[in-house]
Amino acid sequence: MSGILYGLGVGPGDPELLTLKALRLIRENPVIAVPGNDIKASVAYQIVKGAYPKLDEKELIPVAMPMTKDRAVLEDNHNKAADAVESYLKQGKNVVFLTLGDPTIYSTYLYVHKRILERGYQAEIVSGITSFCAVAARLNMGLAEMAEPLHVIPATYKAEEMDELLKLPGTKVLMKSGKRLKKVRDSILRSGQNAVMIENCGMPEEKIYASAKEIPEEAGYYTLLVVKDKK
Amino acid sequence: MSGILYGLGVGPGDPELLTLKALRLIRENPVIAVPGNDIKASVAYQIVKGAYPKLDEKELIPVAMPMTKDRAVLEDNHNKAADAVESYLKQGKNVVFLTLGDPTIYSTYLYVHKRILERGYQAEIVSGITSFCAVAARLNMGLAEMAEPLHVIPATYKAEEMDELLKLPGTKVLMKSGKRLKKVRDSILRSGQNAVMIENCGMPEEKIYASAKEIPEEAGYYTLLVVKDKK
Repeated sequence: MSGILYGLGVGPGDPELLTLKALRLIRENPVIAVPGNDIKASVAYQIVKGAYPKLDEKELIPVAMPMTKDRAVLEDNHNKAADAVESYLKQGKNVVFLTLGDPTIYSTYLYVHKRILERGYQAEIVSGITSFCAVAARLNMGLAEMAEPLHVIPATYKAEEMDELLKLPGTKVLMKSGKRLKKVRDSILRSGQNAVMIENCGMPEEKIYASAKEIPEEAGYYTLLVVKDKK
Repeated sequence: MSGILYGLGVGPGDPELLTLKALRLIRENPVIAVPGNDIKASVAYQIVKGAYPKLDEKELIPVAMPMTKDRAVLEDNHNKAADAVESYLKQGKNVVFLTLGDPTIYSTYLYVHKRILERGYQAEIVSGITSFCAVAARLNMGLAEMAEPLHVIPATYKAEEMDELLKLPGTKVLMKSGKRLKKVRDSILRSGQNAVMIENCGMPEEKIYASAKEIPEEAGYYTLLVVKDKK
């Protein structure tokens, strides 16, 4: 019998934000796929290691997940990742694939998931805490109440349309602004809305920027903004 | 010294989707606030009881959270809930307040949280798995990829604007359509988009509707729709 692939959300950073199910699946299964070429440098590895110190006793397989928008390079890497996973499933071994946050929201895991399903294997998604919920908790604020919609926007892709997107009513969560941060910040300032920004939420190098005016021109990959309607 | 209020997301239904942090806080603290008049009928109580069978040994306080849009009734109930919590914090006891899903997304807990902070006490939010992430996992599908935005819409409030909202690019999650389901369904059919619906996700009475055409005219409170752009 073939093995099962589990796409496991490990949450945004704090090992205690792993679910009971995530910990059980890591404990019970022999093969753990870790995004990144260098396993021990992987944030997902470090999160799980914090909750499950015996992680190194498992068979750990590194899965290259390059940060690029080049479709051909991505396609090639996703296929290679699926091949690596498939080689274990064929042997009847389950594979637990670690992914930051939740696997259904902007996760590279999902491309492997689809391929494994298409190839006729069983694959399951195990929910994790999303970065935007963790950020709101850290900032001690709600994201959406009553009739307010919540819009989650991948800001690197959408920087050019930001003026329009910021007109949406309700709360806007801008994910991974990264290199487009200056453009995003200028749109927020033009919109006159309130914003808070958090870089490296829950990590030692965490930084909080309490208003739109304080947002710098550049920031790291793990940067998230919450923009709220003026009330 | 005053106690601390912890607003604890217990996830959407499966006790295994509690986080390690949630379980630790329940274990370590003496007073657990449970939404609802009848503690043992409360879904949040049942979820936690599944992960922590000794829950009944704690001091359990019921907190009335009526389902109404009447602002005055809500205000009165939120104040009463805050009073009940405060009476324990004053005695130096921590209170763990259970809430379904995540506390920052359409959670009644948040109204108590704000009041407790305003009254000068310490209150912390502990993230939980949101219902929409659990639904996507259950349906074995992603919610958002690459440049796609994700829009979370409280459909009971927004049924009248649904035709417009469904024009938003990306994935639309329609929460708690409940009594407005017929109107919401008709908007989806007019929009020509794909939709899936799930009622009571992860519970014994779970029902999945695989396309917009199958959506019934009425459904229960725990109903969630995912509407995806045609590709």
